[in-house]
Amino acid sequence: METNITRPTLILNKSICLQNIERMAEKARKHQLRFRPHFKTHQSIDVGRWFRSTGVESITVSSVQMARYFASDGWKDITIAFPFNIPETDELSKLSTLGRINILVDNRDTVLSVGTKLMGTVGVYIKIRTDYFRTGVSWSENKKIHEIIRTIEKHKNLSFLGFLTHSGHTYQARSKNEIQQMHFDTLGKLNRLKEQFIHAYPNLELSIGDTPSCSVSDFFEGIDEIRPGNFVFYDLMQHQLHACSIDDIALSMHCPVVSKQKARSEIVVYGGAVHFSKEWIRNTDGKELYGRVRIRHNDEGTKLLPSTSYLCCLTQEHGVIRLSQAAFQHVQPGDIVEIIPVHACLTAHAMGRYITLQGEVMEMMPRF
Amino acid sequence: METNITRPTLILNKSICLQNIERMAEKARKHQLRFRPHFKTHQSIDVGRWFRSTGVESITVSSVQMARYFASDGWKDITIAFPFNIPETDELSKLSTLGRINILVDNRDTVLSVGTKLMGTVGVYIKIRTDYFRTGVSWSENKKIHEIIRTIEKHKNLSFLGFLTHSGHTYQARSKNEIQQMHFDTLGKLNRLKEQFIHAYPNLELSIGDTPSCSVSDFFEGIDEIRPGNFVFYDLMQHQLHACSIDDIALSMHCPVVSKQKARSEIVVYGGAVHFSKEWIRNTDGKELYGRVRIRHNDEGTKLLPSTSYLCCLTQEHGVIRLSQAAFQHVQPGDIVEIIPVHACLTAHAMGRYITLQGEVMEMMPRF
Repeated sequence: METNITRPTLILNKSICLQNIERMAEKARKHQLRFRPHFKTHQSIDVGRWFRSTGVESITVSSVQMARYFASDGWKDITIAFPFNIPETDELSKLSTLGRINILVDNRDTVLSVGTKLMGTVGVYIKIRTDYFRTGVSWSENKKIHEIIRTIEKHKNLSFLGFLTHSGHTYQARSKNEIQQMHFDTLGKLNRLKEQFIHAYPNLELSIGDTPSCSVSDFFEGIDEIRPGNFVFYDLMQHQLHACSIDDIALSMHCPVVSKQKARSEIVVYGGAVHFSKEWIRNTDGKELYGRVRIRHNDEGTKLLPSTSYLCCLTQEHGVIRLSQAAFQHVQPGDIVEIIPVHACLTAHAMGRYITLQGEVMEMMPRF
Repeated sequence: METNITRPTLILNKSICLQNIERMAEKARKHQLRFRPHFKTHQSIDVGRWFRSTGVESITVSSVQMARYFASDGWKDITIAFPFNIPETDELSKLSTLGRINILVDNRDTVLSVGTKLMGTVGVYIKIRTDYFRTGVSWSENKKIHEIIRTIEKHKNLSFLGFLTHSGHTYQARSKNEIQQMHFDTLGKLNRLKEQFIHAYPNLELSIGDTPSCSVSDFFEGIDEIRPGNFVFYDLMQHQLHACSIDDIALSMHCPVVSKQKARSEIVVYGGAVHFSKEWIRNTDGKELYGRVRIRHNDEGTKLLPSTSYLCCLTQEHGVIRLSQAAFQHVQPGDIVEIIPVHACLTAHAMGRYITLQGEVMEMMPRF
């Protein structure tokens, strides 16, 4: 692989990726959950087809643009898991004639705006906020939820499907136990909400999504579908959350070394904020960590360095790696080092494509 | 403009951009400096032509790929201001036959590796570290600098040009005065270095680059060329550094509102980390600020909100904006708000294109 790399290149270990897909698909089967993976992480028709070959038919995306991209490859059951963006109503209308399209709303205005302008039928989830702050109606606002449902029902091209949440606060958890607690809390709230509405809407579904909960938990009472995304590649953030092992991480960035700074025991690589994104996690030394490092180790392939050697700073196209003195001796300008990214979704998006160890180029959704 | 915007769109105010270019070009003329603007900020052949029409003939880029892109539009004097990346030697060799190409080195190994493999002649700057930590040979390491120069001289296709530095630590300054201090310190160190070598190398040049110093200072003794880049657009980071006024910022991201969260007095827009990058500055309230906000104000156009209303959180495609209660009332789902980015270089790169207020699409360097 390495001899062909001349600039930062994102490499995918396909067999790890297939294992990650199969493990989550198996968990969904075991708990009789619909598996509707979020495709915003890989954003690739090629990787999408690996999911299809395990039996997946329903998918999640984060934009109308992404729905169109995957619809072009024959996906016919797509949830756009983002508060619906009114200016894209015409695009949604076109998509609604091609297959089953579901949207999210958290307010009546959006329903009123979209409801009368569609050529086909669109499924509607109400986005519920349990604890994560970002968007949604609070799970306790029964009256508001009732009003939104009634507004949906007034439009023949809208069909109320149920309640959807994203427990994004699990990304702040400090232990597996804390993820479990947050997950149980979400389940409790969603099930209480369901009880209020199930008699009037016996087909209503509950959909949850975050990778930490879906990876860690084996309890999904009352839930109908899961929508994890990041698990397809995993990353250092998930590893720090104990949602995966380091060996479950399928992506690594291969970067050429361009400078050595002996006094600081640091090397500088071609590979910066535009390649990785500026997401970081807290390292054990209290500092910002932007990536873990593997270097070539004699003829035995590459070796993961302990977290005392790490990618400690990113500027536009430079990455600075702090190394132990022993590792520093091993690396010369022109060598390729491998860096495990902190956040797979942002890194894959920033790069716009990745290549398998076997050299297959995985094309991603075009930006325009 | 607004009626056509359906998803996050980066808008360029061309007249502000032209003013920024002219102001810096004038400063260079006044001080008899070669103006070699860094094109990594705009990464656009179209914007490059605006520079050309003010008389600019020499440019700076941050990668071999970017040199190739601008060479394709007829630029014939290009400095690749990045420690030379050995695996791209073949590409460099091709470029060396098309025009004047300069590279940076901070070690002998790179010189030895590149020196014998070039078809044309390549100019070489030694990258000097004054205080900024990233790459380069320390300005005080005379012996090492001598060795590198002698190694350059042994290769007939390499030509020693002088010393180049990037005072990136000015981005940490807290006042104009502090930028000036850092700039004077850099000038002092570079001029002392020049004194050591000018007799042996009477044509050697000094090249400096950062936008804060070039914007704030009017003192460039001993300097031959300046390479600022960010000034073409400026951004909130430069504004916080007092390197520009808020009205000098030429870019804004136009984002649709998708959710309102009344209890928190926050709105959520379609526009996230993949659009802005995750760069932030510290707001007056001590929190992370990812952008300042302009909203439509009756029929009088848009109005910049005080920094108590700001983009306070980014996830993959969501942006959360904290608003005063008064501003909150003014904004509805489907409206477009304008956000001034923290870091123009990363935002422009993340978007991959921008559009002028007049609707001209500025194409940028393709990713592959």
